[in-house]
Amino acid sequence: MHRTKVRIVEDALDANNTIARANREDFDRAGVSVINLMSAPGAGKTALLERALAGLSNEGVRVGVLEGDVAGSFDADRLADLHIPVMQLNTDNGFGGECHLDANMVRTALGTLPLAELDVLIIENVGNLVCPAEFSVGADARIMVCSVTEGEDKPLKYPLMFRACELVIVNKIDLLAHLDYDIDRLEANIAQVNPKATTMQVSARTGEGVDAFRRWIIGVPARAKAPA
Amino acid sequence: MHRTKVRIVEDALDANNTIARANREDFDRAGVSVINLMSAPGAGKTALLERALAGLSNEGVRVGVLEGDVAGSFDADRLADLHIPVMQLNTDNGFGGECHLDANMVRTALGTLPLAELDVLIIENVGNLVCPAEFSVGADARIMVCSVTEGEDKPLKYPLMFRACELVIVNKIDLLAHLDYDIDRLEANIAQVNPKATTMQVSARTGEGVDAFRRWIIGVPARAKAPA
Repeated sequence: MHRTKVRIVEDALDANNTIARANREDFDRAGVSVINLMSAPGAGKTALLERALAGLSNEGVRVGVLEGDVAGSFDADRLADLHIPVMQLNTDNGFGGECHLDANMVRTALGTLPLAELDVLIIENVGNLVCPAEFSVGADARIMVCSVTEGEDKPLKYPLMFRACELVIVNKIDLLAHLDYDIDRLEANIAQVNPKATTMQVSARTGEGVDAFRRWIIGVPARAKAPA
Repeated sequence: MHRTKVRIVEDALDANNTIARANREDFDRAGVSVINLMSAPGAGKTALLERALAGLSNEGVRVGVLEGDVAGSFDADRLADLHIPVMQLNTDNGFGGECHLDANMVRTALGTLPLAELDVLIIENVGNLVCPAEFSVGADARIMVCSVTEGEDKPLKYPLMFRACELVIVNKIDLLAHLDYDIDRLEANIAQVNPKATTMQVSARTGEGVDAFRRWIIGVPARAKAPA
């Protein structure tokens, strides 16, 4: 059973990469920079977006969000208040309740997104620290949100996710005073698995540190166009 | 691609159920009751076990733990202090970095577990709110831990996991005073997707409520033997 399974997963990933490249070509043609935003369930991806995206159009950056969830449109409903294009993609409708977004699911949603009116598209992935890291969706940048309530050991227990991301946002720092949590140990663990990662400490609840993340989003199009 | 994928997943699940039944027969022969313990990453499964299992042998219940993680033996190392049999199973060694434990992985570990010396085996699954719910490992009971820091919406966003469990443990209630969290709304959301679920509110950090969970574990063998 095991050998067969490994072979199937490799085939699926190859197909995924083919479709991810097609997505990238469409994004490039439309001049849209794309962020794949990942985290464990409840780490605060949506709360962070609520804070960071408010008023971003005043900065000359037009942003849209593709919300991925197994079920429901709770996150899309929250972001609708921001008056930006938000599209909900449920993985249990026709996708079998998948634990991640893959390139084909994103491609399925492309026709519903006003790409010509966007500078940045943020794809909020399904809350999961394992599977989303394995599936390219055609993004320019990968971000993960890591909550201080999850413990300092997560980079060592889920190394692939931490390695897959250029930016690690450490959220819920407003709770640090109430936790037995060593944020320096977290930073050391992140550095151990991904020395190149940038980290930001934020509280989506109080807004502390969110401005740095907002500036990072604003800078994504310029960085995507810069020669590597 | 999509049709092919669905068919493959069904085949894999069938094979999994066959192996899960074999596991159950082995557990039954050894007289061991088995708990499949699941949660999102960082919800506090290991901390809860540290609290609940300490001194359990004095209650006449011999418990062992099978720790499932993508990488590392951090959780097994923590539980080793309890002087109970603890076995670490890493899904990135030969299993391709799987996001869940399946029946075959558990079966692979069976030979290393002293089943004859146990009354209860707790299988701590990989932290993930989606995939572990889809794979039977041959357990008598399924528990999930849900942290109050994850938000009240999780039962509606990850309904399969909440439906798959008889007991939902709401952890980290010591933090309630510092969160904008409506625990009654969580309970209502759990009741909406799984009206039969038992819930317990605990703090693995302070120990509040953990005694009820400990008594629940002690009762597992009797409940497993009772006619349905």
